[in-house]
Amino acid sequence: MKNAYVILILLFIGIGCEKTADNEKANKVDTEIQDPLPSWNEGQTKSAIIAYVASITTADSPDYIPIKDRIATFDNDGNLWSEQPAYFQLFFAIDRVKAMAADHPEWKNEQPFKAVLENDMEALAKQGEHGLLQLVMATHAGNTAEEFRTDVQEWIKTAVHPTKNVTYDKLVYQPMLELLEYLRTNDFKTYVVSGGGVDFMRAFVTEIYGIPEEQIIGSRIKTGFDYNEGSPVIKRLPEIEFIDDKDGKPLNIQKIIGKKPVFASGNSDGDLQMMQWTASNTYPSFMLYLHHTDAEREWAYDRDSHIGKLDKGLDQATKDGWTVINMKTDWKVVYSFEE
Amino acid sequence: MKNAYVILILLFIGIGCEKTADNEKANKVDTEIQDPLPSWNEGQTKSAIIAYVASITTADSPDYIPIKDRIATFDNDGNLWSEQPAYFQLFFAIDRVKAMAADHPEWKNEQPFKAVLENDMEALAKQGEHGLLQLVMATHAGNTAEEFRTDVQEWIKTAVHPTKNVTYDKLVYQPMLELLEYLRTNDFKTYVVSGGGVDFMRAFVTEIYGIPEEQIIGSRIKTGFDYNEGSPVIKRLPEIEFIDDKDGKPLNIQKIIGKKPVFASGNSDGDLQMMQWTASNTYPSFMLYLHHTDAEREWAYDRDSHIGKLDKGLDQATKDGWTVINMKTDWKVVYSFEE
Repeated sequence: MKNAYVILILLFIGIGCEKTADNEKANKVDTEIQDPLPSWNEGQTKSAIIAYVASITTADSPDYIPIKDRIATFDNDGNLWSEQPAYFQLFFAIDRVKAMAADHPEWKNEQPFKAVLENDMEALAKQGEHGLLQLVMATHAGNTAEEFRTDVQEWIKTAVHPTKNVTYDKLVYQPMLELLEYLRTNDFKTYVVSGGGVDFMRAFVTEIYGIPEEQIIGSRIKTGFDYNEGSPVIKRLPEIEFIDDKDGKPLNIQKIIGKKPVFASGNSDGDLQMMQWTASNTYPSFMLYLHHTDAEREWAYDRDSHIGKLDKGLDQATKDGWTVINMKTDWKVVYSFEE
Repeated sequence: MKNAYVILILLFIGIGCEKTADNEKANKVDTEIQDPLPSWNEGQTKSAIIAYVASITTADSPDYIPIKDRIATFDNDGNLWSEQPAYFQLFFAIDRVKAMAADHPEWKNEQPFKAVLENDMEALAKQGEHGLLQLVMATHAGNTAEEFRTDVQEWIKTAVHPTKNVTYDKLVYQPMLELLEYLRTNDFKTYVVSGGGVDFMRAFVTEIYGIPEEQIIGSRIKTGFDYNEGSPVIKRLPEIEFIDDKDGKPLNIQKIIGKKPVFASGNSDGDLQMMQWTASNTYPSFMLYLHHTDAEREWAYDRDSHIGKLDKGLDQATKDGWTVINMKTDWKVVYSFEE
């Protein structure tokens, strides 16, 4: 009875809701006992992540970072989920291109549409990220924000990956889900910063990653507002507004978040500028590259890949001492369904 | 001793950190006893706000809104702080125009620069919001994000309003600060969504409004990333990228937040589309217009004003039963220094 009374008082006056150094320490002890990263093998990579988080959350450390500045940004394709044999958003777009093809006879001779209609994935991959975004934007416009959201949600429930034979949402990396959660437990604000379409991601990744819509940043098409006689809609227009890749990542981070990240995670040269921007933080920062080295469980690719090319980024990571995940040796499991 | 032990246990296991319906009820009782809006006179406006918040935070109410969807958006100029005799960001721009004028002889004959150099505030006001933004963008570019931030922070500490004779940060509305805090106490996520420049606002309003940088949305200029041999900078380019006004407000809300607000607060026709978008939420929503009716303590203006024109918005508020603050009668104090 007495304890219940104390709990009520504490709830009422809000003790326990304010984050304090003591409180953080208690959380840390708690998570260390549990192993916050159970799908990661013991080794340099896991140790480096845990040592960094410990140092910047220790209140009396010179490396301490206030909670408000614990911004962590994660690339999506090839970093939180797979991106082979093509970006998953492309498989969504393919269904739409095929459905719309009768109204667009010119697509038969026009890339990247030609490749889609001929099921020529190799030719499609050669169109690069820009070609892909062209395709995506062309097939994602002409409807309202709500209609598009519904389309994506229907697709993710039913569509199956061409070689893995599971729905695409099963192809998220279990170790990265643990990393996201570990950072949030330590009061990082986790963001997705992806070259993928922001509205495509927002339609379903919140539940999977535990990241709310407003912390998902991506490429976007232009939109228009229509009051529509009291039932306003936002119309999706067939024009690219912003490609959230390469230089676009730090620019979008500054525009939308307004703070430099302290933790950045990516897997390709498209993430390099985000890494460089993060590395220039006056707080201690952590740059994490995922190297796809596991042809058996996932895919192996880097310097010569049409998708997720990692070349300059790997060089700078080596030169500047950034942390590089070796997927094959650092991860106990890649996907949760392996367990 | 026993109580201290219980507190430690609670901190350790995290009880009191998770928001629950009980917890919310306790908070509510707490704030109601204290009067969450002490600078608001008793009356229809205050009652409507409190009744709305009570209804959507009551767990067993059909109007209950989950915490993740409690998005509240506030216009800034004329809504959180004054905007007369001209937008305050303009006074910042004026100092820069005068300093840069020697390098721009053409400005002597070119609006809106001509008006600034001639100290002709009336002519300047006639350039409208678009002319103002032109001026702001032209004078805010050519430096880095960090340099600009420092410039604004220096200015806000020293510059004095031409008629009120206080620094500009004193001209925030005390009742609106209380409203922001009241909403946050009830787990709303409060955003600024303003036609003003996002980087101008972010340089200093976080501390005043209690709103972090990433929840401040505004107009923006184009930017460029420069790796700068390992000391990367974001350069501010002299081109407008997006004007966060009128249609731009719901479009930017959808792009950046990705959710429809449930609470929108503004004072001009520039906020009307944000209100309409909010009113179309499937959750119960609250639209709040501030009507400047107090020529003595602040300013009185509406349908014919060059700044903060409120005409169509006032008509729709009346027609659709939105709440309108009568500044003269609803607010006990306007600025905290009156107290």
